[in-house]
Amino acid sequence: MVITDIIEKKKNGLKLTKEEIEFFINGYVDGSVADYQASALLMAICIRGMDRDETVDLTLAMRDSGDKVDLSAIDGIRVDKHSTGGVGDDTSFLVAPLVAACGCKVAKMSGRGLGFTGGTLDKLESIPGFSVNLDQNAFVDTVSKFGLSIIGQSKDIVPADKKLYALRDVTATVESLPLIASSIMSKKLAMGCDAIVLDVKTGNGALMKNLKDSIKLADIMVGIGRMAGVKTSAVVTDMNQPLGNCIGNSLAVKESIEILRDNIECDIKTVSMTLAAKILLLSGICDNNSEAMEMLEDKFYSGKALVKLAQMIEAQGGNADIVDDLSLLPQAAEVIDVRADDEGYISEIRTSEVGMAACMLGAGRMKKEDTIDPSVGIVLKKRLGDFVKKGEVLAEFHVNDKKNLEDAEKRFKAAYSVSEQQPDELPLIYTIIDE
Amino acid sequence: MVITDIIEKKKNGLKLTKEEIEFFINGYVDGSVADYQASALLMAICIRGMDRDETVDLTLAMRDSGDKVDLSAIDGIRVDKHSTGGVGDDTSFLVAPLVAACGCKVAKMSGRGLGFTGGTLDKLESIPGFSVNLDQNAFVDTVSKFGLSIIGQSKDIVPADKKLYALRDVTATVESLPLIASSIMSKKLAMGCDAIVLDVKTGNGALMKNLKDSIKLADIMVGIGRMAGVKTSAVVTDMNQPLGNCIGNSLAVKESIEILRDNIECDIKTVSMTLAAKILLLSGICDNNSEAMEMLEDKFYSGKALVKLAQMIEAQGGNADIVDDLSLLPQAAEVIDVRADDEGYISEIRTSEVGMAACMLGAGRMKKEDTIDPSVGIVLKKRLGDFVKKGEVLAEFHVNDKKNLEDAEKRFKAAYSVSEQQPDELPLIYTIIDE
Repeated sequence: MVITDIIEKKKNGLKLTKEEIEFFINGYVDGSVADYQASALLMAICIRGMDRDETVDLTLAMRDSGDKVDLSAIDGIRVDKHSTGGVGDDTSFLVAPLVAACGCKVAKMSGRGLGFTGGTLDKLESIPGFSVNLDQNAFVDTVSKFGLSIIGQSKDIVPADKKLYALRDVTATVESLPLIASSIMSKKLAMGCDAIVLDVKTGNGALMKNLKDSIKLADIMVGIGRMAGVKTSAVVTDMNQPLGNCIGNSLAVKESIEILRDNIECDIKTVSMTLAAKILLLSGICDNNSEAMEMLEDKFYSGKALVKLAQMIEAQGGNADIVDDLSLLPQAAEVIDVRADDEGYISEIRTSEVGMAACMLGAGRMKKEDTIDPSVGIVLKKRLGDFVKKGEVLAEFHVNDKKNLEDAEKRFKAAYSVSEQQPDELPLIYTIIDE
Repeated sequence: MVITDIIEKKKNGLKLTKEEIEFFINGYVDGSVADYQASALLMAICIRGMDRDETVDLTLAMRDSGDKVDLSAIDGIRVDKHSTGGVGDDTSFLVAPLVAACGCKVAKMSGRGLGFTGGTLDKLESIPGFSVNLDQNAFVDTVSKFGLSIIGQSKDIVPADKKLYALRDVTATVESLPLIASSIMSKKLAMGCDAIVLDVKTGNGALMKNLKDSIKLADIMVGIGRMAGVKTSAVVTDMNQPLGNCIGNSLAVKESIEILRDNIECDIKTVSMTLAAKILLLSGICDNNSEAMEMLEDKFYSGKALVKLAQMIEAQGGNADIVDDLSLLPQAAEVIDVRADDEGYISEIRTSEVGMAACMLGAGRMKKEDTIDPSVGIVLKKRLGDFVKKGEVLAEFHVNDKKNLEDAEKRFKAAYSVSEQQPDELPLIYTIIDE
């Protein structure tokens, strides 16, 4: 087999065989396929596409490119949850404790934030003492004992994805359904969980801007999971405004704890409950959705989910007292009100721009090498469809370094449009894909 | 400007601006655009294409990527001729002397052979003493004095093409009309000639296998030349069998000299006269084709063209006595008859395979690093449409090293198909493109 023949084939829009895809992935990982050959093939895939068989073959070849996580020591149903990423997207802090409280074993590896999207690891690390770097044994022990653990991805898991992702980033080959799907699913499948629930975000703050593409991505990923023998479902949820009101790291943790502790009904809760119910159904813990919802509401209102969260924090070296005293979380030096310039109903929020404004305050990374400030961020006071008067507070900026404050404020305000008429409400959950 | 935005644009099938194309070419030459970014863009260009403006901009950016040849010291009309390459394609040895004898100044840089296609430089170097490495001054002097010189391409001319071509070769991005056209024309334009005639080969021994693509390529290249202010025409000629009967290096030189010396009417002469007439018209030396043909026939039959060839050989250090004594050219140790296995009319010759068989005897290079044997090759005894009896001689193999003889013979014979009915004769000249 020669790599140029494989590239040529995809260039001409032909279907690649399992063996050809494996030759590419293995060759790219061992260095016999060069970066410039990989990028040519990636571009051909971006333009010509891949069918379901090819996408599955690509995902499995990537999954098998490195170490796998051995979860066999964990008794019970091992589950994973993944979000395609958005702004203020903190459902893991509710979903994991909720389903753990129902008896599931949540073994989750998470990522860091980049650009406008936040990262679960960064948020967890805002908890004093919390470590995301457990070794495999400690990870398996924590999941076994408490039902949940969230750690960083080991560098030996799916090396093909790390190499490919870095290359895609600099060759304009990120946007491609089969490449996105295989990147996500190869890592999920390498975890060896029994069930996976995917939260596929759709809208102007998501990777997939339109619903059709989001459903297609969800559909492809569910297909991959099932063809790999893992129970997989996807929920397509709205990202045309931040989920929840807090964008930042300690701010997001604080918001999650408040929801669990004070039993707050909100968008984060709704999405989290939907995802958690799916997990209970896939796990066979519940037979139908209403049974699952009932069980989850009980764990929510009884405080049992919050206990699980506290247990995980403690098990991973964090200060679990934050659950009772949120002031133990890092706080920004100053809180600055950002006020509306125009009057009207909020008709559009360019969500990624809101994420970028938070990023400029220090809550996120522009480049991978950047360090983040765990205490800063944005707390929204108005949401889509709300009426806002001129001079009314749109949001609070939690700030330490004021270097970019003015630019961040400008960018944030520019992300909002107002209109005279109240806009139609957008659905929070668009669809659920099971097969 | 960022290279990923440019790649993204072409990935989405959008037109690139002159500035974007220059940014790419200059960045690739200075190293700020990486190989893997260039190959992603090349693949996007292969699939999405480029329109005429983009192709012209690409060609000019490439032309301007390095040194240019200064022909200003040469009085008269400076002309160039280029073939897109084929098997047994030796028209330069007729065209250059013919038009030089008519007063044109032929300043030509040529290439070497690779795979099934032969190279003019390799053929010239089979002449004892001949040097293709004249410096710029000696080159200009030779053209001024004798009206013609053919040398190797200076390494500082169009560095962008050298880098891009090497990359295209290993990333399956060779076949693309705008990339092929810009590669050829950037080098031709960097020569600074006043007129260029292109011999675009079409058929199973050419880069372009079908007539439609060949005409398209010819059309694009003529457009580029004219938009760059150079008088350019193209002749689309047949390459569904070798041109002439000799495939090899000294064999090709010998055949050319025989045609000129003994006034042989043959396909090489027909194609050469057509190309030469075009040059006389573009140069303004003749007003119409019949006048041009008359002048050329005179230079042919009077022996004046042959004198020009001898002058060039001598000026470039070669032994011009070969013109009178062809036995001074390198001769192979042995001539072996290759006989037909089947009886019938020759209905198809897979020309590139014939070229590969010659290559296996040592007449060409499989890889760039290979050395060639100037004396070996193939002399065809039968052509398309000829009737051949079983056991009749199809060709003579001129051989030194017999290592690959058996395989070469097998490959050569497998390139021929015979049929009971005589096939229709193919045109030698398909079309001429002037604008």
